[in-house]
Amino acid sequence: MNVHGAPYRTIWVGDDGRSVHIIDQTRLPHEFVTRALNTVADAAEAIRNMRVRGAPLIGAMAAYGVCLALAEDPSDASLIQACEMLLATRPTAVNLRWALDEMKAATSALPAGDRPDAAYAKAAAVCDDDVATCEAIGDHGLSLVREAWEAAGRSRPVEILTHCNAGWLATVDWGTATAPIYKAHDAGIPVHVWVGETRPRNQGASITAWELVHHGVPHTVVVDNAGGHLMQHGRVDLCITGTDRTTAAGDVCNKIGTYPKALAARDNGVPFYVGLPHSTVDWTIRDGVRDIPIEERDGIEVTEISGRTRSGEVATVRLTPDGSAAANFAFDVTPAHLVTALITERGICEASVEGLASLYPERARHAA
Amino acid sequence: MNVHGAPYRTIWVGDDGRSVHIIDQTRLPHEFVTRALNTVADAAEAIRNMRVRGAPLIGAMAAYGVCLALAEDPSDASLIQACEMLLATRPTAVNLRWALDEMKAATSALPAGDRPDAAYAKAAAVCDDDVATCEAIGDHGLSLVREAWEAAGRSRPVEILTHCNAGWLATVDWGTATAPIYKAHDAGIPVHVWVGETRPRNQGASITAWELVHHGVPHTVVVDNAGGHLMQHGRVDLCITGTDRTTAAGDVCNKIGTYPKALAARDNGVPFYVGLPHSTVDWTIRDGVRDIPIEERDGIEVTEISGRTRSGEVATVRLTPDGSAAANFAFDVTPAHLVTALITERGICEASVEGLASLYPERARHAA
Repeated sequence: MNVHGAPYRTIWVGDDGRSVHIIDQTRLPHEFVTRALNTVADAAEAIRNMRVRGAPLIGAMAAYGVCLALAEDPSDASLIQACEMLLATRPTAVNLRWALDEMKAATSALPAGDRPDAAYAKAAAVCDDDVATCEAIGDHGLSLVREAWEAAGRSRPVEILTHCNAGWLATVDWGTATAPIYKAHDAGIPVHVWVGETRPRNQGASITAWELVHHGVPHTVVVDNAGGHLMQHGRVDLCITGTDRTTAAGDVCNKIGTYPKALAARDNGVPFYVGLPHSTVDWTIRDGVRDIPIEERDGIEVTEISGRTRSGEVATVRLTPDGSAAANFAFDVTPAHLVTALITERGICEASVEGLASLYPERARHAA
Repeated sequence: MNVHGAPYRTIWVGDDGRSVHIIDQTRLPHEFVTRALNTVADAAEAIRNMRVRGAPLIGAMAAYGVCLALAEDPSDASLIQACEMLLATRPTAVNLRWALDEMKAATSALPAGDRPDAAYAKAAAVCDDDVATCEAIGDHGLSLVREAWEAAGRSRPVEILTHCNAGWLATVDWGTATAPIYKAHDAGIPVHVWVGETRPRNQGASITAWELVHHGVPHTVVVDNAGGHLMQHGRVDLCITGTDRTTAAGDVCNKIGTYPKALAARDNGVPFYVGLPHSTVDWTIRDGVRDIPIEERDGIEVTEISGRTRSGEVATVRLTPDGSAAANFAFDVTPAHLVTALITERGICEASVEGLASLYPERARHAA
């Protein structure tokens, strides 16, 4: 996607063929800063301190972390140590472990001297695969946006509401929930995006809004509370969100606040779509409300917030009175019956056991 | 209610029998500062700059503003000028005009020398009436909290979710939505309040939380997004909110984000109550979604937020990137069918034409 008019991915190799470059996401939305990483320690630091975030991008970063280690020292010890260091950065991210396993499989059997080139080739493939997956989600989702445009007689922009950031900054490019939006915009279909700010970490108001500014997609930030009102007054044609974990029956665990938006969509006859790569499906469970544990994070994310002061610095302010506790549930579960359809890299399906099985028969056979 | 262990109203006459004292709500939640008002200009400034806010409290402040004017100069000209000045502060607040009309009726026919005492007596009556109304809402709502406690076998606190601030700081005492909570707490029924922060102006996280801290009511602040998750997991026994305008059929127009909470309550079988004095009922309309215009406020309330820095100052920070527009809808409408019951000063009724007519037959006869 574009930044200041130039196309970017979230991660790329420098002209020297060795250094790895990222967008430092901790500086967004107030500053656009890229960062050159030259060692595996740099890569680990970037993941740990969330300069890169989003499961697919973390996987890609880890893959390039192995490249940086092997470029320095292609020995077995170096490979093992790099993987340990990277795995320790955010041990719960599934894509991180998966990417490291891929990198080990692609390099460990080779003579040490051949490992660096093989590693860079494999990391590039990991990134390209992610881009292809997201782009396929975008192509399938584009048909839904196009239908909404036709339904409105091509007379006005398609109004799309999203929540949180399942955008290109969480992946290598395109994003998941945002891919259909970018595809539609690039295809000349006028879209307008209602960006829910996504308290408490405000990924919508900061990162998604920033993405849309730079790619030139018309949008308006609203508080999370406004989604129901907008839908009640016919100002949303469709909702698209991402998902952090999807059950074999199509229940969707996504950023807290997704479920109330899905309820409002259902109450007002607005289609509610979820964009996802197959890797987010947990084939071992069906009932998301019962079986998905919801992470509780530090209440300080609720009681304090950061932003840019009028003098241009980034500052943190406290919102609540002394003596008030805060609870911080990171996700909620939207039951499948509230999800109009899932948009995957293989196509669009009903959010149900049968729907997912129709697209992923090889996985569904062994599912819960 | 209590502040630092001492009982307070939001407005009171000083020991000199003339000055009027308020809690400066612009300093909350980070500082508790009371302020002595000695002139009608002071009173107008306090309303205009939202040192006092909430329709009932604005009415009370206006009443005492007339007192301050007449204590200075009890002439007709002074009375007229005071009412004009006060009415101009926030011309849309219905209670403001009503209170000024009451004050004029109570003083204008009297000899000038008798006016100051009559004015102070009338203003005190306006305040006492508001307290009695809110307390009656509390007494009726208490029965619902008690039922929930009994239903839980008195084994754990009653879990109550509220939104925004329909608290004692918006009235003279007790509040509307909070009155049943304070009544239950004071009656020894253990309660725990989930306080939705209420973006964008955060009246929940700041003012409601502050009230509860000082009255000693256990509570936890959550982002607005969390309400659905809490209800889905059985962690809310009942919801209570206020209302800014209620139709003759029981539709409730309240702070943006009330409607999604009511949807989540319905989806999870959680009772959703609304506390209100009869003065918020607009007997001229039935369909709130169609007929209540929703105020759109400046987007800066979404893009910027204020809080206390670590060094103790109050600072404003920007949350969104340059180039992102924001929309700011102040209210939404919750259709009557999502409201379990209305809690009024005359009792509890169904949110319907019939329900309201059963409590207010004299008004309903002439309703839409």
